[in-house]
Amino acid sequence: MALSPLIGRLVEALRCLPGVGPKSAQRIAFHLLERKRDAALELARVLEEAVAAVGRCESCRTLSEDARCAICTSPRRDPRTLCVVETPADMAAIDASTGYDGMYFVLMGHLSPLDGIGPAELGLDQLERRLDDGEVSEVILATSSTVEGEATAHYLAEMARERGIRATRIAQGVPMGGELEFVDGGTLARAIMGRRDAI
Amino acid sequence: MALSPLIGRLVEALRCLPGVGPKSAQRIAFHLLERKRDAALELARVLEEAVAAVGRCESCRTLSEDARCAICTSPRRDPRTLCVVETPADMAAIDASTGYDGMYFVLMGHLSPLDGIGPAELGLDQLERRLDDGEVSEVILATSSTVEGEATAHYLAEMARERGIRATRIAQGVPMGGELEFVDGGTLARAIMGRRDAI
Repeated sequence: MALSPLIGRLVEALRCLPGVGPKSAQRIAFHLLERKRDAALELARVLEEAVAAVGRCESCRTLSEDARCAICTSPRRDPRTLCVVETPADMAAIDASTGYDGMYFVLMGHLSPLDGIGPAELGLDQLERRLDDGEVSEVILATSSTVEGEATAHYLAEMARERGIRATRIAQGVPMGGELEFVDGGTLARAIMGRRDAI
Repeated sequence: MALSPLIGRLVEALRCLPGVGPKSAQRIAFHLLERKRDAALELARVLEEAVAAVGRCESCRTLSEDARCAICTSPRRDPRTLCVVETPADMAAIDASTGYDGMYFVLMGHLSPLDGIGPAELGLDQLERRLDDGEVSEVILATSSTVEGEATAHYLAEMARERGIRATRIAQGVPMGGELEFVDGGTLARAIMGRRDAI
């Protein structure tokens, strides 16, 4: 037992970080205490501030400390397209790399009845009201290509169709730089099925 | 720009963790804010407490919130053997797995003149006073098998020899479970050189 009780508690508390087991938690604890005390204090302060202040954007449900996030309040975004994603991280990834300039709606998950996650938990009542507004003319379904993501997209497409709103699903196929040999069969099948005229 | 300013600051602050780049910092930030708010608050509190309270043990220089750590104050440890290590992590590793029951001295680094780390920075004056006490009869040199670790061990061995104290170096050789084919040449050479009679 070469760890002092307080260091032991720090190691335990660091286990809340994703993918951090006992060994790495101990390594992180020593790293911070030996070399990064100022940064560790700053991290503690920002963590407290963020946990206290960050809530959900009331329009798109993404994580934000403002009542409405920067994208929802931006006058430069097109309110006629609404891209539905599962998580704030998906929203950040799409916004950082695609040039998409419409709005978002963040589900914070996907339909998963066995885990008790139904339409209410994903804020779909709020999404329905948004679609009823009449401003949205296309819903882009950017949920994951998993069974749950597909089921969620299917449900949402139905919701849009009932209101006469166009629903599109992001393309599935071979990833950029992906060598065909190493691409899984399901993806290859989708890529063949979704083939388009070569230019 | 889909991250709010405060979440951006949290992502930046998380970069103080070892091996965490911008991508994983963002992943950690979302993970904590979406699912682990209580744990994140607890982490912030323990971080602040540890940074404020954890200093160095005045006997062995390891990280501890007590003036003297649990090992230095234990009546069950043998004060005649002193194991010199580079870091608190090395001390924890040796103590967890070897059954060693003597005392420790933690250098918090190794001699590295080019980086301005000389005997004073490693607390070697304190180590000298400890050796002069006359209680220690063996110094185990458990610094790393790197160039700097070897140089440090050499320096410490000299320091012990001047006082007529036995200095030993931990054994170098093939690691447990290591297949010879994959062991590097330097290690193999040490293993041959340090061979012992088979029982």
